[in-house]
Amino acid sequence: MQLLKGKPVADGIREKTAVLAAKLLEKDIVPTLGILRVGANESDLAYENSAVKAAGAVGVHVEKYIMPADSKEDDVLDVLKVMNEDDSIHGIMIFRPLPASMDEELIRNHILPQKDIDGISDASLGGLFTGDYRGFPPCTAEAAMTILDFYGIDLAGRRAVVIGRSLVVGKPLAMMLLERDAAVTVCHSKVAREKTEALCREADIVISAAGRLKTMGAAHTNPAQVIIDVGINFDDEGKMCGDVDAEAVYDKVAALTPVPGGVGGVTTALLMYHVALAAQAAAAENY
Amino acid sequence: MQLLKGKPVADGIREKTAVLAAKLLEKDIVPTLGILRVGANESDLAYENSAVKAAGAVGVHVEKYIMPADSKEDDVLDVLKVMNEDDSIHGIMIFRPLPASMDEELIRNHILPQKDIDGISDASLGGLFTGDYRGFPPCTAEAAMTILDFYGIDLAGRRAVVIGRSLVVGKPLAMMLLERDAAVTVCHSKVAREKTEALCREADIVISAAGRLKTMGAAHTNPAQVIIDVGINFDDEGKMCGDVDAEAVYDKVAALTPVPGGVGGVTTALLMYHVALAAQAAAAENY
Repeated sequence: MQLLKGKPVADGIREKTAVLAAKLLEKDIVPTLGILRVGANESDLAYENSAVKAAGAVGVHVEKYIMPADSKEDDVLDVLKVMNEDDSIHGIMIFRPLPASMDEELIRNHILPQKDIDGISDASLGGLFTGDYRGFPPCTAEAAMTILDFYGIDLAGRRAVVIGRSLVVGKPLAMMLLERDAAVTVCHSKVAREKTEALCREADIVISAAGRLKTMGAAHTNPAQVIIDVGINFDDEGKMCGDVDAEAVYDKVAALTPVPGGVGGVTTALLMYHVALAAQAAAAENY
Repeated sequence: MQLLKGKPVADGIREKTAVLAAKLLEKDIVPTLGILRVGANESDLAYENSAVKAAGAVGVHVEKYIMPADSKEDDVLDVLKVMNEDDSIHGIMIFRPLPASMDEELIRNHILPQKDIDGISDASLGGLFTGDYRGFPPCTAEAAMTILDFYGIDLAGRRAVVIGRSLVVGKPLAMMLLERDAAVTVCHSKVAREKTEALCREADIVISAAGRLKTMGAAHTNPAQVIIDVGINFDDEGKMCGDVDAEAVYDKVAALTPVPGGVGGVTTALLMYHVALAAQAAAAENY
């Protein structure tokens, strides 16, 4: 079985980003990511630290906007307005889920489209559906597609199954695979496990984006199958695992992305690349 | 085999529409559909005539905006602006395809969302993807779903295949079926016929929206299958036919919508219902 490692994919994206950031620096532009965090959730902090490191490595600056956990929705919208209007911020990332008291849909749709570098607003997402690609695609979905391309996996006319139908990953992936001429099936929690297994067994490519341990086991596989594991979960011992029972499928498929070491790093690399692209687009507009 | 006739479904919609139109008439409001036609294409004229009849039968008025075939894009946009601004027009329908010289995407996105009764703008369509249902769904896709519901066909957890990935029918249907908890597969012209056959054979529900004669034959079927035929095609002898080779599948499936007599009439009935709903919404805003 081939392990589809994310590192060489991410390295290529990081190199492109660093080159672009250096070019912008010549014009005194520092591509800048604004991070909006409400509260101090442990996993948010961990991701924030790794994002700051990843940004620094490619010449992207991070500006943090940190708000107390008991902030009001209006205050978050006010801060978002400041970030939208500040020309030195090129991309905006919001930690989600936001506190339950807030209307997350309202807030995410207030990000300026050209700064929505993780493609979370309806305008960015809707474009994936209508084919009118104005905004950035969601980084996780794009990461899965980028890995498939990097490893030369054909999609046209082939059977692909996406497990999960979230607006962040599953649905965008279905649209991206369709755009690339795959025959696309979407399975989810309301489909009986045996049915999902049967559909996956017939699939050339399976992308699991359910966010649940052991979503996929040996019964989902065939020997020619390529699996992209988008899940980031933690087992009973606190070890990071994907959606796929890697041990169970190990010698039963043709290729699999590891977790950790697969989709995650590519996602972060793409996020920074989007920031640099957004900075470039802003510079082109303001020259 | 059960023939899933459209007439009883359309009758119910027409009745709802007539009741709503009568209620609005008490407030001196006549639900009005504005039709924008460029040129005098024969099939456009035929549909226009039938739409005028269908409208009249339920108390919807039709206002025609007819432009010469050699009109400029700007002229069409100007007329569309007049229709958008005229409060006595509640719904707008544009005959498509427009002449090749025009940017159809630009034009369809100029319809005011609340008047977009066939759901052809990106705003209406994008909402199907994001789950933010602000606009009207496209009538043809809604007609297929309405027929399934009328005849009590379960969707949750069942396997549905959509043949066709158009922005008008295939993609919206995929989203609607997913919303109803089906395991949804989208096939299209870039998928080998044998693969589509194999996927359909395993499906509980197949909706064919390819717009091509004999898209489906006996090899696509199983005895428990329900087929919704969205296609409107004409054979060599000029006879109206669906996508399905009805003769070939006749005794091989559980149920099938006829063409003519299936989806088409439900689509027109829904279009008129949307006009009445749009008139009601406008009245509620202006009272």
